[in-house]
Amino acid sequence: MTESTERWGLFELVLQGPADGNPYKDYEISATFSKGDRSLRVRGFYDGNGTYRVRFMPDEEGEWRYETFSNAAELNGVSGNFTCTPPRPGNHGPVRVRGSRHFAYEDGTPYLPFGTTCYAWIHMNRDLQEQTLNTLAQAPFNKLRMCVFPKNYSFNKEEPDLFPFVRKADGTFDLEVFDPHFFAKLEQRILDLQRLGIEADLILFHPYDKGKWGFDEMDAATDDYYLRYIIARLASYRNVWWSMANEYDFMKAKTMDDWDRVFRVVQEEDPYGHLRSIHNGTRMYDHRRVFLYDYGKPWVTHVSVQHWDVTLTSIWLEEYGKPVIVDECCYEGNLPQRWGNITAEEMTRRFWDTVTRGGYCTHGETYTHPNDEIWWAKGGRLYGQSPERIAFLRSILEAAPADYDLMPEIYDVPTIGVRGVYYLMYFGLLRPAYRDIELPEGRFRVEIIDTWNMTIEEMAGVHEGTIRIRLPGTTNIAVRITRIEDQ
Amino acid sequence: MTESTERWGLFELVLQGPADGNPYKDYEISATFSKGDRSLRVRGFYDGNGTYRVRFMPDEEGEWRYETFSNAAELNGVSGNFTCTPPRPGNHGPVRVRGSRHFAYEDGTPYLPFGTTCYAWIHMNRDLQEQTLNTLAQAPFNKLRMCVFPKNYSFNKEEPDLFPFVRKADGTFDLEVFDPHFFAKLEQRILDLQRLGIEADLILFHPYDKGKWGFDEMDAATDDYYLRYIIARLASYRNVWWSMANEYDFMKAKTMDDWDRVFRVVQEEDPYGHLRSIHNGTRMYDHRRVFLYDYGKPWVTHVSVQHWDVTLTSIWLEEYGKPVIVDECCYEGNLPQRWGNITAEEMTRRFWDTVTRGGYCTHGETYTHPNDEIWWAKGGRLYGQSPERIAFLRSILEAAPADYDLMPEIYDVPTIGVRGVYYLMYFGLLRPAYRDIELPEGRFRVEIIDTWNMTIEEMAGVHEGTIRIRLPGTTNIAVRITRIEDQ
Repeated sequence: MTESTERWGLFELVLQGPADGNPYKDYEISATFSKGDRSLRVRGFYDGNGTYRVRFMPDEEGEWRYETFSNAAELNGVSGNFTCTPPRPGNHGPVRVRGSRHFAYEDGTPYLPFGTTCYAWIHMNRDLQEQTLNTLAQAPFNKLRMCVFPKNYSFNKEEPDLFPFVRKADGTFDLEVFDPHFFAKLEQRILDLQRLGIEADLILFHPYDKGKWGFDEMDAATDDYYLRYIIARLASYRNVWWSMANEYDFMKAKTMDDWDRVFRVVQEEDPYGHLRSIHNGTRMYDHRRVFLYDYGKPWVTHVSVQHWDVTLTSIWLEEYGKPVIVDECCYEGNLPQRWGNITAEEMTRRFWDTVTRGGYCTHGETYTHPNDEIWWAKGGRLYGQSPERIAFLRSILEAAPADYDLMPEIYDVPTIGVRGVYYLMYFGLLRPAYRDIELPEGRFRVEIIDTWNMTIEEMAGVHEGTIRIRLPGTTNIAVRITRIEDQ
Repeated sequence: MTESTERWGLFELVLQGPADGNPYKDYEISATFSKGDRSLRVRGFYDGNGTYRVRFMPDEEGEWRYETFSNAAELNGVSGNFTCTPPRPGNHGPVRVRGSRHFAYEDGTPYLPFGTTCYAWIHMNRDLQEQTLNTLAQAPFNKLRMCVFPKNYSFNKEEPDLFPFVRKADGTFDLEVFDPHFFAKLEQRILDLQRLGIEADLILFHPYDKGKWGFDEMDAATDDYYLRYIIARLASYRNVWWSMANEYDFMKAKTMDDWDRVFRVVQEEDPYGHLRSIHNGTRMYDHRRVFLYDYGKPWVTHVSVQHWDVTLTSIWLEEYGKPVIVDECCYEGNLPQRWGNITAEEMTRRFWDTVTRGGYCTHGETYTHPNDEIWWAKGGRLYGQSPERIAFLRSILEAAPADYDLMPEIYDVPTIGVRGVYYLMYFGLLRPAYRDIELPEGRFRVEIIDTWNMTIEEMAGVHEGTIRIRLPGTTNIAVRITRIEDQ
């Protein structure tokens, strides 16, 4: 058998094996994938109907050799080769941390996360799922926060058709038997996102169960059993991120030690080191004490925080030395809950405020809807005015030098840039009539950006020395200063 | 000599004495004022031209007796009586701390501080001073932050006509000789404010000198000499508050021990215990460490803080157990400096945000002006749109039960009230479409307040139990819930 798989594509070995007993539990299969001196061991999984699969994401072009190991004789010692070909256009590999505050795809292409949130979209009906994908295709988002388990919460009471575990006649779940149909659906959705250039920020546990299904209070052994299975299935999808939990502090059945263990299981089971973080609920960073999960722990790749006060971003960057994504900062909408009713203007402001403090921000939308089809939970359509402003910000950030950093010398206005070369200052709620700037050595272009009206106006001329920048006197203004290259 | 002075009025004993040498330094005069078992000792002062004065603010009606003490024979042992009459209308006495978060005049009338800032207004020309008083007469403010020493700062370079100390021919100051004309002017302005019902929050030291006059770097003995003199003159004005300094952390010549000493001198010299605080510059409360002067010290009566983030108010209330006034939270205007260019809407929001978190807020205005006549420094005219909104808030707060407190059970929206009786919730930037409330026992009136448009709309009917309050879906909304008294 000779096959080929592109770099960071998904190679899949399919084998037939025993179907007796509970194959999910009774049989194990793994394989080593080797190239030259390198060898990776990956876990395979049972997919129902006597079918076993071992998936592998090669990160190097050339010939790879594999060999299986199993406690089932017919699955053991199977070996073969495949060719890893160059990645196709648009495939840049998985996202990695770059330096201490940025991300990049594995091929080095910078990745600037502009995420959104559709927690339970895969648990909705097929039409709504398709609508979500159509909306995403038009939207500026390249990361989606989404849950594996279904959600039982305000405005989201739907019973899904499929669950990760098989349901018994009495309505409870057999926590030893997975449902491959559910996972096939999940995998399809992850691929759909991949095609749209969207990272799937997959939430492995969450508290929105409230006694309905019980997935929030499984025991540690079951949690680990589930983690090993889902990672065996999904780790070779290059656009997967692991979010241990959403609002972990609302999951009363779990301790901080449990979360450490969950992190370590994920770290151990995933041979590719996909991004790992955890997201807090109201156990927020407090002004007097740090209340967050310790993002400094070695198995955490980045900070995935919930906080209304995004101006804390630079503090977290300093505290943890890792990239910061404010994965919830309230949602654009008009729900009664405090987290669900900021204006589009405020959402846009929080994006700019986070980004110009060196972090990244995540969108969500929560407008009341006659059928409760609210984007943040179910996907569907977007009604708000912030996405196009977020697209505008994304275009500006993508045009910035990739290695931008905080510019603390401009201490009074959050500013990112590259010293002497590029500055992006954000005035937010402040609206000075003018701003005096002492430019560094060189000649500069100065642009006034209206972040709400999405206009960029260049200040006439080429600028040097100390200059006065006249500003429009309105809020939501940014200033971009770019060094003009010598001819 | 028999005279009468109203309660909390100013009784003044005028004596002629020696004018030789330096009477400010060489002669001391004090007096005891006695009524029944009570006796207070107060310091008098030299007022130039051989005139000595001893001022006293009686706090009890009836006959008071006094007797002087001096190292000058003709000033020693002078005694007499005067009658303290009931206070005239509008005279409620000096402002005191009431409980742990409020203020009241000494007669028990609640005092809700709604301050503004004209740092150097007394140092401007007479016409501008008069204009300031005319503006204040129309404005909603009942406290004014103002400096004793003149100010040398951006937009404020004026050389005043008078200084606390006499100027020598070489332009330096004789720091042993006060100028009574300066103090007479200052006293007149304090009385002008008193007539307008405005407390003079008098700033005893400030850093805006920058080598021009040197008042920010006098030695400790001179500081104390100045304090004893100014307190002897001003402590009997009932509307005086002592602010040890503005932006004390910018005064590099002083240590924290100096500030402790200044507080203790003021505390010791002022027999009436006027309010005492100190105001920070950029040594702000930090999100990880407390950087402020320790307002918990026993000589500090209340917190007079500068911070952009007024949502910290409730933290300071808890931390210090004293009333909190955010005496600077940025100013309405359009100056280039970061502290001087928030919108009227944002200023109004910061007032509401502070007040519904249990504190009080102070206004300032900084619009560019062709002659740099900017309210925050010089007084003059107000151009902004926040004062009328602050007046609206003041009217609402004055109609609230005086003993309102924080209502932590409404945890998601800052709310003050009296449990079961009155609630004032402020939504600020949040704009939910509706809000479900479980009312306490009783029947209630519900009003929707638009804090920007200054409208109050009553929700039809009398309300009980769990209700849904439809909100307009715009920002800057407050809800007032008032229990209807049984007929």
